[in-house]
Amino acid sequence: MSQVLPATISPTLFAERADAIVTAAAELAAFGWTPATSSNFSMRLDNELAAITISGRDKGKLARDDIMIVDMDGKAVGTAARPSAETELHTQIYRRYPAMNVVLHTHSRTQSVASRLFSKDGVIRLEGWELQKAIAGQTTHDATLEVPVFPNTQHMPELVARVDAWLDAGKPLYAYLIDGHGIYTWGRDMPETRRHLEALEFLLGCELDLKRLGA
Amino acid sequence: MSQVLPATISPTLFAERADAIVTAAAELAAFGWTPATSSNFSMRLDNELAAITISGRDKGKLARDDIMIVDMDGKAVGTAARPSAETELHTQIYRRYPAMNVVLHTHSRTQSVASRLFSKDGVIRLEGWELQKAIAGQTTHDATLEVPVFPNTQHMPELVARVDAWLDAGKPLYAYLIDGHGIYTWGRDMPETRRHLEALEFLLGCELDLKRLGA
Amino acid sequence: MSQVLPATISPTLFAERADAIVTAAAELAAFGWTPATSSNFSMRLDNELAAITISGRDKGKLARDDIMIVDMDGKAVGTAARPSAETELHTQIYRRYPAMNVVLHTHSRTQSVASRLFSKDGVIRLEGWELQKAIAGQTTHDATLEVPVFPNTQHMPELVARVDAWLDAGKPLYAYLIDGHGIYTWGRDMPETRRHLEALEFLLGCELDLKRLGA
Amino acid sequence: MSQVLPATISPTLFAERADAIVTAAAELAAFGWTPATSSNFSMRLDNELAAITISGRDKGKLARDDIMIVDMDGKAVGTAARPSAETELHTQIYRRYPAMNVVLHTHSRTQSVASRLFSKDGVIRLEGWELQKAIAGQTTHDATLEVPVFPNTQHMPELVARVDAWLDAGKPLYAYLIDGHGIYTWGRDMPETRRHLEALEFLLGCELDLKRLGA
Repeated sequence: MSQVLPATISPTLFAERADAIVTAAAELAAFGWTPATSSNFSMRLDNELAAITISGRDKGKLARDDIMIVDMDGKAVGTAARPSAETELHTQIYRRYPAMNVVLHTHSRTQSVASRLFSKDGVIRLEGWELQKAIAGQTTHDATLEVPVFPNTQHMPELVARVDAWLDAGKPLYAYLIDGHGIYTWGRDMPETRRHLEALEFLLGCELDLKRLGA
Repeated sequence: MSQVLPATISPTLFAERADAIVTAAAELAAFGWTPATSSNFSMRLDNELAAITISGRDKGKLARDDIMIVDMDGKAVGTAARPSAETELHTQIYRRYPAMNVVLHTHSRTQSVASRLFSKDGVIRLEGWELQKAIAGQTTHDATLEVPVFPNTQHMPELVARVDAWLDAGKPLYAYLIDGHGIYTWGRDMPETRRHLEALEFLLGCELDLKRLGA
Repeated sequence: MSQVLPATISPTLFAERADAIVTAAAELAAFGWTPATSSNFSMRLDNELAAITISGRDKGKLARDDIMIVDMDGKAVGTAARPSAETELHTQIYRRYPAMNVVLHTHSRTQSVASRLFSKDGVIRLEGWELQKAIAGQTTHDATLEVPVFPNTQHMPELVARVDAWLDAGKPLYAYLIDGHGIYTWGRDMPETRRHLEALEFLLGCELDLKRLGA
Repeated sequence: MSQVLPATISPTLFAERADAIVTAAAELAAFGWTPATSSNFSMRLDNELAAITISGRDKGKLARDDIMIVDMDGKAVGTAARPSAETELHTQIYRRYPAMNVVLHTHSRTQSVASRLFSKDGVIRLEGWELQKAIAGQTTHDATLEVPVFPNTQHMPELVARVDAWLDAGKPLYAYLIDGHGIYTWGRDMPETRRHLEALEFLLGCELDLKRLGA
């Protein structure tokens, strides 16, 4: 399942992005956020192509050849490897937002439990946390951030349509949850996207803790 | 307590299986799922024999000579080492399912607590979790998986009979819990079995969290 | 953004303090207490100057050039790097207490949740814990320690004034919390300040656990 | 504060015991069970002397010269180093039980919280857990183990007397808790004592989880 590079993608560029994905995956796996080969990670290569993790691998033990290329419809390019069913959720972000270059999808226990708990509301509201400022564009704790929770489905076009409808409504928080599943978050580069992911994991955990404490 | 290899088992095969067990044990111990020398792990060698951890060792610090050979009745072969009392629960799986090659038994806090909490129901029902798809044969979150919880006993034949009765009833989920004890899970190879174990640990943890949150 | 050393600060002194901050930051990040580039750490250089972490960096991956010099008003000295908005909270301690040489500000989930839960009381009372003796000057578990919780604000002078008012009232416990944010703690040297931080994180966690248990 | 060895203790014996303590301390510190320089660890050297950790050091970073020698009254021998106030609780076990060679005292959050929660009962009862078999002499989950919880005091003779009274009453479980403090556990050698400690930490955690779940 070796990856043949399209003419438009230099070996250096692909190696750089693949290595950045492998490193991030190893760190997120060490946090326990990628259980049982779940989760997938991607980086934009250019306007037409993205690098993404091949489905079904242990995210703590990836190497460069566990990364494949897909086009913006989520179809494999230059490889017989199978992209994850959820690849379309990555390329949807790259198509909509030319400035976004990284999408991280993880599957922590906090994310899964929060998604179940708030699924009937369809949204999680975050207020009064200093760490809200870790989300791009946020400058104060004194604001309300809304993270939507979409119903899960094995039929991707349905999920893509729901995400589109929400993004069209103009409240993009760089992230959404899927019920019983996990989080999708994105950003301009890997450090920003990691910051978004860590902040949201933290804030979801805090909200669950407050609920447990009856607050 | 050195292991003498039966003529049917090549040194290469035994070393490969022993090393795979040692590596998995170290990783599962690092997760904290094998407290106080608990837990045991095995791999099939052929239709007659299996390799299994010797009882009472620290699972985070095993070496190749902490692995012994047993026959399909759970009796030691070619060694004076003592197999765990629970060895019969491993060989039961190998006898019933020729396609199954790995059995992992761990003892995490989540597993122990879940087994106590659900013991009166005799079963834990999992519904609506994306990670249910990590169990072989499952293709959607929109299904109900049942993990049985058997009463604990120090009399192994009783436990073996209960497991047989449940497996005979035809709802094999590749796993069961024992009350106040831990989980048994199995699979075709080590990656599949690790995936089953990680997914079930994760899902049991999610179910406990939802209960704590009053959901 | 290289740091030019003032004439009064020897390269050896700066390197020693910068390295001590980098080491502490890496250890506290490994505990998960610095999510999403939050938290900041400083050490006094002399009566006029302190070394402090540059804003916005991943605290688990700092190097010596992620440390900058500020004066006791929190203004950058010899560098174009931007100090954190919260730098004034560090220098406030150095100005008030000549014997204090280290300030650590972290942002653990326990600290954030405890600050929210106790913000309406404005204080967390610790009683009956042996680990209270880890705070300088405490010799028994049989005492009441009060950790104040101040409202959060993005306007630093307001927060500085609140801290001053509390310290003026004469109940300094070497620490305070900010609502929805994290903890500030200080001490004579790095080991004492680390001990204060670890003890308070532990005790806040114990208090949250007791509340969860209905005790 | 170098340690001068008494004539009866060979350098090899002291080095061996000191290294065993240093290794155990590092592993237990990595579990987070020794916050803020708390906890202390000892091993018997002979009928008159024991090796024990010097008070106030970070237990994750001990070296051989952080270990000192005390006599069976807990007095320093051959060193100006200060033994912990709690040294008498270690030597009490060595005096009473010639077969016991290791005492471990840790201070985990689970231990501290459980001690507070059960202090009014004066005892924690463990029933129905398979891991009860990790305690020396226990052969079944179908038994009741009682771990006493003593009131805390800064006056050691009072605590020594309470422990004596309990041990005299003949229900030794190789362990006790002190309210708001931590656990003491002992055994014949380091592996047995580590097994006791890990099993009790695990079982206390399970009991707290069941309480949180309303079970």
